[in-house]
Amino acid sequence: MLTIDYANCLSTRVGSHGIDPARVDGSSEEAKGLAAITRSLKETRGTGWERWFGLWNEPMRSEHVGAIKPLVKSLHGKFENMVVLGIGGSALGNIAIQSALNPATYNLLSSKERGGPRMFVVDNVDPVNLAGVLAQCEPKKTLFNVISKSGETAETAAQFMLVRRMLEDALGKKWASHVVAITDPEKGTMRTICDEHGITTLPVPEGVGGRFSSLSPVGLFSSAMCGIDIDALLDGAKAMDERCRSEDLTKNPAAMLAHLLVDLGNRKGKHSHVMMPYCNALYLMADWYRQLWAESLGKRRDKDGAEVFTGFTPIKALGATDQHSQVQLYREGPNDKVFILCEVEKFDEDLTIPTGMGVEALSYLEGKSMQTLLNAEKRATEYALLESGRPNMTIRFPKVDAHHIGEFIALWQIATAYAGRLLNIDAYDQPAVETGKKATFGLMGRAGYEDWLAKVDSALAATDYVV
Amino acid sequence: MLTIDYANCLSTRVGSHGIDPARVDGSSEEAKGLAAITRSLKETRGTGWERWFGLWNEPMRSEHVGAIKPLVKSLHGKFENMVVLGIGGSALGNIAIQSALNPATYNLLSSKERGGPRMFVVDNVDPVNLAGVLAQCEPKKTLFNVISKSGETAETAAQFMLVRRMLEDALGKKWASHVVAITDPEKGTMRTICDEHGITTLPVPEGVGGRFSSLSPVGLFSSAMCGIDIDALLDGAKAMDERCRSEDLTKNPAAMLAHLLVDLGNRKGKHSHVMMPYCNALYLMADWYRQLWAESLGKRRDKDGAEVFTGFTPIKALGATDQHSQVQLYREGPNDKVFILCEVEKFDEDLTIPTGMGVEALSYLEGKSMQTLLNAEKRATEYALLESGRPNMTIRFPKVDAHHIGEFIALWQIATAYAGRLLNIDAYDQPAVETGKKATFGLMGRAGYEDWLAKVDSALAATDYVV
Repeated sequence: MLTIDYANCLSTRVGSHGIDPARVDGSSEEAKGLAAITRSLKETRGTGWERWFGLWNEPMRSEHVGAIKPLVKSLHGKFENMVVLGIGGSALGNIAIQSALNPATYNLLSSKERGGPRMFVVDNVDPVNLAGVLAQCEPKKTLFNVISKSGETAETAAQFMLVRRMLEDALGKKWASHVVAITDPEKGTMRTICDEHGITTLPVPEGVGGRFSSLSPVGLFSSAMCGIDIDALLDGAKAMDERCRSEDLTKNPAAMLAHLLVDLGNRKGKHSHVMMPYCNALYLMADWYRQLWAESLGKRRDKDGAEVFTGFTPIKALGATDQHSQVQLYREGPNDKVFILCEVEKFDEDLTIPTGMGVEALSYLEGKSMQTLLNAEKRATEYALLESGRPNMTIRFPKVDAHHIGEFIALWQIATAYAGRLLNIDAYDQPAVETGKKATFGLMGRAGYEDWLAKVDSALAATDYVV
Repeated sequence: MLTIDYANCLSTRVGSHGIDPARVDGSSEEAKGLAAITRSLKETRGTGWERWFGLWNEPMRSEHVGAIKPLVKSLHGKFENMVVLGIGGSALGNIAIQSALNPATYNLLSSKERGGPRMFVVDNVDPVNLAGVLAQCEPKKTLFNVISKSGETAETAAQFMLVRRMLEDALGKKWASHVVAITDPEKGTMRTICDEHGITTLPVPEGVGGRFSSLSPVGLFSSAMCGIDIDALLDGAKAMDERCRSEDLTKNPAAMLAHLLVDLGNRKGKHSHVMMPYCNALYLMADWYRQLWAESLGKRRDKDGAEVFTGFTPIKALGATDQHSQVQLYREGPNDKVFILCEVEKFDEDLTIPTGMGVEALSYLEGKSMQTLLNAEKRATEYALLESGRPNMTIRFPKVDAHHIGEFIALWQIATAYAGRLLNIDAYDQPAVETGKKATFGLMGRAGYEDWLAKVDSALAATDYVV
């Protein structure tokens, strides 16, 4: 199972930049506070915006898996490509799970090697990028998986409008059979479109926000299409969730994770969190984490209305690669970060560095495995960070498989619930994204938003401050 | 030409979080200080660790281009794949230029569509990742471009040892003809290996550090192999360099960029720099920038030996995508960032959102172009950041082509030279990476590093702080 080694967050290891070990003791006041949160979560889990706790439990689990599996089976072998149209929480989980559990070269493999379709996730409206993907995807051989709860997210709507026309031009009335939509089961613009055209749908479950939806059909459908074991994902999440019901802080990974990170922020000024997996497959999991952590905890006001401008800045890095890019800063720049290293104990495949090179300076590498080298680099960085008084922890994966990825996802979602309570903020809203949406409507000429156009043009009037 | 619009960094736009416009006036004390740096750079450019200024000027330029072009011509059509083996400055420029100037789907195109070989950059020792790439690359059809000044960088050496054996097994004595090395022209382990086996080489020029080398053969060879116009890259860099010789602050983009970012750091506590291009092709340029900015400026001591722990944390983000992930935090979290937005005025290809969707809520999108939508999103975000008092600037690309990418690279390299002087630190060393290298040697059993193994094992002894 996934473990967190947090010895290097403590003052015994990093001096004044670390937490007093008394504060992580199971009998401390802090532990009692966290136990109270654990108890309160038992009340709220599965209700309101914490309905995501139900994703790996009955009845939601069987409803979702029971809908996804027959659909995937019915589509099997019919499409050479699948293109996910979505943005934010409707894309990041899909990308993260796919890149963690399928090879980086997945789209270059033969159809037989892959088993599933090639997979593209288009999560932007960059025309060059979108045109490039569409040029790869002959309509007859392509399934489009559009993901939008409302159907009104501008980026996804624009993509969908384009794709729909492309499909209709190529396939006529059969166009709708090349779309699977994941959307609100009851209402909204996308729902209306799907009902009108008979588009197959899967639900975005009620009360599950975008950034908490990767283990709902939002992330599970594309995963299952690409051969990923979605039962194992959910089993892993469930196993982690069970560990996180413990009122003993020292046995509850999510409570401890949230406690460490909030405490290092509040008491030691570490407001940036660097997620640095020593494993390429886990690198894009950091993008999923970035949204969850930033959007949930970055809040101007606390629950009492006080202005707090709280939150942590998530940063992604890759070991060993970023040792040659970021570690100089991480050791000698401002001491304002916590490093969340991820380590893999056993890679699915290993490579042995050959003997017989005949170069003295490189002989120490001969006969060693690449995994040994990579994990030695990780341990060396851990040591170097320690020597500079930089708090860090290690999330250890026995291996990278669907079960452990499920654990990882649940760990962070549950830690977010704890952190929101520790910071006394609402982890489930995102009030600050509204302004940009309305300003975009204004700039795009949507009726009713004329005043926004005027406000933007006035605030951003051209000046001579250009070089 | 590339421009920087910095109105939104000023107090007139973002209140107390911005810079007083008097400080960017061409006649200010600050401008005089920057003019003094401009004059001093005229003395040091092309000497010591600032020999990178010579990359786009004679005689270096012709030496490099004159060696690269005939080599690329002689290799044309002979290889289906090219794999770059390198890490840090020996990989980031290659990845950035390739992803900026060739399609994201480049490796999926047919050989005819591409013109050059498929390109892979392996900048880690993750065994699963490396095995996946090598499985795609039949030795007979593959050229390996190993980049290492010394040949002793552990990651690159390990990759090279593996690849050499793979090639030798497949090709016998001809293996060396499938390697182009970019290394020290005079000395070192890789030089010795190349001389012994007759491997074709290009130089890592003397006095050009890794993070300043992307416009040397390090970045130019792989670019030219993939059809990128390296003359235009160098022309762009030269054009930017010429603008940056102006002693008038208001006409010197690099001086202004460094001044704004250092001033916002020193006086307004903005120590994180978010690079957020509204263009997928520019996203990985941010990784190149991350190394340049972090490793050059993240320093514990200034030139007088005082402990300063200075530097800025570079963060990459992608517009519009990260509006749905990071902008909540960017607007409502700690006000400790400067946002460097990048905008493209004209994309190489555009797409029009079709009319006739028949959905009222989406009618405002009909007939608009994707580029219009993307740039409206950018402007809306600029407005939203402004409304929250968050300083930001826009680097504007007339289009994304080799000339403007060359400008962008030179802009940041020269800005780094200014910033180093403004911070009174050595921008060209990286003392903090040595510890990790030595600890790795110790852990890997290299003779002479036994004491490092003992130190690491003692410092990182297992504890019960695991959950």
